[in-house]
Amino acid sequence: MPPSFLSSPSLPFLSLFKHLPSLLFSHLTFSSLLPTSLQKRPNILQQVGTMSVPITPALKDELDIVIPTIRNLDFLEMWRPFFQPYHLIIVQDGDPTKTIKVPEGFDYELYNRNDINRILGPKASCISFKDSACRCFGYMVSKKKYIYTIDDDCFVAKDPTGKEINALEQHIKNLLCPSTPNFFNTLYDPYREGADFVRGYPFSMREGVKTAVSHGLWMNIPDYDAPTQMVKPLERNTRYVDAVMTIPKGTLFPMCGMNLAFDRELIGAAMYFGLMGDGQPIGRYDDMWAGWCVKVICDHLGLGVKTGLPYIWHSKASNPFVNLKKEYKGIFWQEEIIPFFQSVSLPKDCTSVQKCYLVLAEKVKEKLGPIDPYFTKLADAMVTWIEAWDQINSTGTGVKVANGTANGTANGK
Amino acid sequence: MPPSFLSSPSLPFLSLFKHLPSLLFSHLTFSSLLPTSLQKRPNILQQVGTMSVPITPALKDELDIVIPTIRNLDFLEMWRPFFQPYHLIIVQDGDPTKTIKVPEGFDYELYNRNDINRILGPKASCISFKDSACRCFGYMVSKKKYIYTIDDDCFVAKDPTGKEINALEQHIKNLLCPSTPNFFNTLYDPYREGADFVRGYPFSMREGVKTAVSHGLWMNIPDYDAPTQMVKPLERNTRYVDAVMTIPKGTLFPMCGMNLAFDRELIGAAMYFGLMGDGQPIGRYDDMWAGWCVKVICDHLGLGVKTGLPYIWHSKASNPFVNLKKEYKGIFWQEEIIPFFQSVSLPKDCTSVQKCYLVLAEKVKEKLGPIDPYFTKLADAMVTWIEAWDQINSTGTGVKVANGTANGTANGK
Repeated sequence: MPPSFLSSPSLPFLSLFKHLPSLLFSHLTFSSLLPTSLQKRPNILQQVGTMSVPITPALKDELDIVIPTIRNLDFLEMWRPFFQPYHLIIVQDGDPTKTIKVPEGFDYELYNRNDINRILGPKASCISFKDSACRCFGYMVSKKKYIYTIDDDCFVAKDPTGKEINALEQHIKNLLCPSTPNFFNTLYDPYREGADFVRGYPFSMREGVKTAVSHGLWMNIPDYDAPTQMVKPLERNTRYVDAVMTIPKGTLFPMCGMNLAFDRELIGAAMYFGLMGDGQPIGRYDDMWAGWCVKVICDHLGLGVKTGLPYIWHSKASNPFVNLKKEYKGIFWQEEIIPFFQSVSLPKDCTSVQKCYLVLAEKVKEKLGPIDPYFTKLADAMVTWIEAWDQINSTGTGVKVANGTANGTANGK
Repeated sequence: MPPSFLSSPSLPFLSLFKHLPSLLFSHLTFSSLLPTSLQKRPNILQQVGTMSVPITPALKDELDIVIPTIRNLDFLEMWRPFFQPYHLIIVQDGDPTKTIKVPEGFDYELYNRNDINRILGPKASCISFKDSACRCFGYMVSKKKYIYTIDDDCFVAKDPTGKEINALEQHIKNLLCPSTPNFFNTLYDPYREGADFVRGYPFSMREGVKTAVSHGLWMNIPDYDAPTQMVKPLERNTRYVDAVMTIPKGTLFPMCGMNLAFDRELIGAAMYFGLMGDGQPIGRYDDMWAGWCVKVICDHLGLGVKTGLPYIWHSKASNPFVNLKKEYKGIFWQEEIIPFFQSVSLPKDCTSVQKCYLVLAEKVKEKLGPIDPYFTKLADAMVTWIEAWDQINSTGTGVKVANGTANGTANGK
């Protein structure tokens, strides 16, 4: 007798996800229904297939794009068709007196070091200076559910058919689809059109878990460390791997902040990029640090982390000699840090990201502190970060009211 | 001061692997150096690039191809350019009086049920009948270091450029290259030409571990269970994902036996396909069972398991109604079996595959026996399998002497 659950809830559930791409764009709104400000911007009205009705891009009002920078944001021109509907949070690093030019028509707010100091007061010490780690300030002050962060030397890549890749759209698909961290699916993302769970995949695990992080990749300049850059200065990534996969539970990965999206409500409070750059003994480990912490906490809380599509085009390799100076302590230290993160476990009563993060900070102080005084300082900064996060995020009105003087405006002027 | 290990041993080591493809074919031998029997077979002499010298295919004398079948092996015609240099072990399932036709020119030995019973005596009870699980008998009697096994409804697939894929060659590359189960590399196989370990990947882990298993995938008919087949009878896999990846330590996967290669010396004794088919309450879980056991043992022994390339073309879907009958107990049972394998741990003194497998058999009896008497029988069969394996593999001359009456011959007549 066939078991009764062959009419299992998981099968109709699966069929839901097969329709995800259309669901993403299901909020069709005729231009008469759009806010006036948007009706004036016909360039954000997109066409899907043969439809000629304007649509609202997925998560338009639920996602901020966070960009750390020290220069004019000309790179946004190439991203205009994909990014312009969204709100940008620009975190200006370095000299706060410098003016960062943002192309016309983008909706943004911009914070420089003076803004950060004013908003956070003494707690500003947890935000790195002269390092792109400062981007995490943008995560903190966002009021949206989702964040996409991208470096300003990243451009639009093309897929093998020559089509420009809307990286943000793919990240949104990744975030809105479940992850499968508890068992490996050999045909990669089982929720994708044309794929499914293979024979032998337990039915009880087919609903997956919520996705907290979507880690995208890079064509052209790969994200190598300084020694590998030096050994292979001419290596370019030309291979487009058409896959999104969940990084299994219990497995750490090197999370790169260049092309990264996450669910701020699910994991934002752990997305701290540490103490790097000015006054610190290391750099280029900001995203790595966040990745280790985030993965351990996602595993503990039963959340998913995906990697793979989308690709961006990474245009220029950073200087390997400069990078080596920033990295070399990290290259040693990671040999002890990674075993620490591989073996750390969080107590059952850590049911929120904040609680997990504070326990992790304690363990960092205890276990990594003996390596170097830097880790004691970092552990303290982790606590400060959570305090600042909770402070900024606990008020109904939030920082945007407190930050009327931030030098960006909603009109992008 | 840059640390001294920037001239680390891992970097020269890496460069070794970049040359792997050429190493695989480095045993260039002019035809005058070939054994006479091979000189007479010009069709096995291949061309690499513009070279016109004959070469010996990689691992020609170190790999057997194991094929379970109930029908004539016409499918080998399509594989001739890739398989003909290798020795085949054909395991004939079902009626032993039936004659299986093998295309001319292939070097093979063939075992039917009578052969299996004669060779193993009472221990033949551990080899399934009327189920492709019988293929594991071929693993046992092989005298080679490597095994490739393929189903007789699998044909040569094409890559996106239209080129025919030499699946065996890719499996050999996978097996001869290390695996990286202890940390995830976001650019997939770090040893592949054009790729490497990304920033943040610990240098101490860059030599990887020995690869025990290479699990290949399928274009066209995906390997779905009966319920998924029924829900999506027309779904075909058309997506070529150009990646090979290591399945991380601690993560189970559904191992399909359709297109599978492994290092027999490293893991062969655990590649037991269980009790399936005739007289057993389930089928279609033979490869799954082997996969769970193998992965747990590989993780314990520090060996690697890869999945991804190469693809074969899976030509025909099996009948979902027949499959459902075979699978349905397994579909229930796997909900308890998988948590068992996810939590089982092997004691430190289990330093050989055999020792690991016998301990696993004990634990299966203890923990899964209460689910159904089948698991007690299966646990006993696991012990019998190891006894038979050791018996067949302990003699210097091996089964081929004992099996002079097997109905295949080295001439394929």
